Amino acid sequence: MSNEFSTKGAYVTGGEFTRDTNYIQDRIVADSRPEAFAAGEPQSSIGHPQAGLGEGAQLWPVEAGRYRLVAARACPWANRTLIVRRLLGLEDAISVALPGPTHDARSWTFDLDEGGKDPVLGTERVQENYFKRFADYPRGITVPAIVDIPTGAVVTNDYPQITWDFSTQWKEFHREGAPNLIPEGSLEEMLPLIKRIFTEVNNGVYRAGFAGGQQAYNDAYDRLFTTLDYLEERLETRRFLMGDHITEADIRLFTTLARFDPVYHGHFKANRNKLTDMPNLWGYARDLFQTPGFGDTTDFEQIKAHYYVVHEDINPTQIVPKGPDLSNWLESHGREELATSGPFLDGTAPDEVRPEERVTAGHNPLYPA
Amino acid sequence: MSNEFSTKGAYVTGGEFTRDTNYIQDRIVADSRPEAFAAGEPQSSIGHPQAGLGEGAQLWPVEAGRYRLVAARACPWANRTLIVRRLLGLEDAISVALPGPTHDARSWTFDLDEGGKDPVLGTERVQENYFKRFADYPRGITVPAIVDIPTGAVVTNDYPQITWDFSTQWKEFHREGAPNLIPEGSLEEMLPLIKRIFTEVNNGVYRAGFAGGQQAYNDAYDRLFTTLDYLEERLETRRFLMGDHITEADIRLFTTLARFDPVYHGHFKANRNKLTDMPNLWGYARDLFQTPGFGDTTDFEQIKAHYYVVHEDINPTQIVPKGPDLSNWLESHGREELATSGPFLDGTAPDEVRPEERVTAGHNPLYPA
Repeated sequence: MSNEFSTKGAYVTGGEFTRDTNYIQDRIVADSRPEAFAAGEPQSSIGHPQAGLGEGAQLWPVEAGRYRLVAARACPWANRTLIVRRLLGLEDAISVALPGPTHDARSWTFDLDEGGKDPVLGTERVQENYFKRFADYPRGITVPAIVDIPTGAVVTNDYPQITWDFSTQWKEFHREGAPNLIPEGSLEEMLPLIKRIFTEVNNGVYRAGFAGGQQAYNDAYDRLFTTLDYLEERLETRRFLMGDHITEADIRLFTTLARFDPVYHGHFKANRNKLTDMPNLWGYARDLFQTPGFGDTTDFEQIKAHYYVVHEDINPTQIVPKGPDLSNWLESHGREELATSGPFLDGTAPDEVRPEERVTAGHNPLYPA
Repeated sequence: MSNEFSTKGAYVTGGEFTRDTNYIQDRIVADSRPEAFAAGEPQSSIGHPQAGLGEGAQLWPVEAGRYRLVAARACPWANRTLIVRRLLGLEDAISVALPGPTHDARSWTFDLDEGGKDPVLGTERVQENYFKRFADYPRGITVPAIVDIPTGAVVTNDYPQITWDFSTQWKEFHREGAPNLIPEGSLEEMLPLIKRIFTEVNNGVYRAGFAGGQQAYNDAYDRLFTTLDYLEERLETRRFLMGDHITEADIRLFTTLARFDPVYHGHFKANRNKLTDMPNLWGYARDLFQTPGFGDTTDFEQIKAHYYVVHEDINPTQIVPKGPDLSNWLESHGREELATSGPFLDGTAPDEVRPEERVTAGHNPLYPA
């Protein structure tokens, strides 16, 4: 995602930024017999743990080692998949390719890899993998994308569905102690919450930043802060969005909060206040950041470089701000007191991140330069 | 000032923003015999209470009603003159013209006035008054400027000298109780402080915002926050920069601080932290804001409109942020405890601002919409 201007992953119409939510809706599933998915329908923009199959979409079988997750650290939608993969312990089952933070008008590129090529896929541009699937693929070249390694073709870039399917379809490969991020019985409350977070916050910051005019911006700003105020209040008494335990909803909010002060506050003019000015949201964000899987997949330098360099339309100088000071993400938050049990219910936190997947030193206060 | 890009009041060289500090250095003085000013030399960029006369510059006599101060509220350099005029009670002696916040490539304009003309000068553009002085005036059309009403010609736009001369040359017309903003005996300490505030802070934010490249920006950012840290420490034990009483130094720092969170933090990427994150500077800024002459000459809406609309080079959409929330400028600061006497020594605060000069309701928390 996040390449709205350059590759038509989104467009501005009537002054308002509109995200193109038509993705490649194939799914990788535990039971890939078509009849198993006849009933449901996919939920565009938020996904669904019991979603069906979109028209023309195909089913692919879960298979360890077959797929490669392409997920730029800079991108909030891709960052979700990195977090869930870590929490569930899917590292051995699904390998990861990491495009660099900046991309040109055509595509995200593997510029951080030796020789500028992903060592497994052998491609320079994620676009090549889209073209291996559809030679004339007309939509945005977005991440996250899951690639079928044998053919090099993109299977899906339907990010709202990808994380649900990691939880529900890849269970066979979950690590011991993997948390249940979609607790039964909570869906009725969680789905509307996730939808509101998507439209008002995750996508709301983009609507503010890419507004085509003052009125569209003003409206986006008001909607964004109305929902942040609601979440601030919700988190007054709950350690996490759904209560004592971390769920899919928290992952979805976290990746926007982590980008709020470094990028959205200034670059997207989401500036009523900083995240650090909202005590519950700020404590909550620090709580998650300090939990394995969250902070250790967050690369603030790549995040800043991505937005400020790629969006020349709103930052023509491409100068990347030095601030804000981010050392405060490690400050204690005291939010354990709001819960009666640990953040993973009967699960455990993942181990230390693998050395080869560690965020570059100096890009995150967890890993000082 | 602040029309750097459009009218060559400044330029970018080797990646670094350089302010053109060659102004019309005429002075309006109590004793306009040339021999009274033979010795000294003007101090470019900071002014001086005992300054001499620049080469080719002329002396004009102090005379109530003869001059009109042209001072856009948006502009930090012009805002200084509005504050000093209020504190000293020069409203009857020197009238004021207020150009609107946005201007085109040619000039500040009197677009807020009826018919788009200043009612006294009769001009639409400040440029016309510059041309009445020098038909081929080649430099930036800047405010503040003082205009000789009979001829309509600009006398001086040398803003660092203008406020010193209000204090030292216009004494005859000071109100009863006017504070001494340049206390004798404090100059030795105050002049280097003012110089540092100018180069590192007042102009430092512009160096960050208009840097021609990443390195020039990084350097400007570091210099800016080094000095803000120094000032934060200095204000730990002093209510005002020079101690218990308000001086010229405070006026010079205030107009930059008032613009820090609304503009410089995001628009100029001066974003290590907000002003509100520096407790002494933030308390100090609120203390001044709540003092007559400071907050009542500050128009946050004009300030935001000016920077975000005029600087198309760095904000091509010209969308003006709705934030930040500025209601907190009226919160108590508790800094009276740092001083043993009032802010004006043996002087008094000015009366309420005159209704015709009041900042528009809704543009400032002192005057709710």
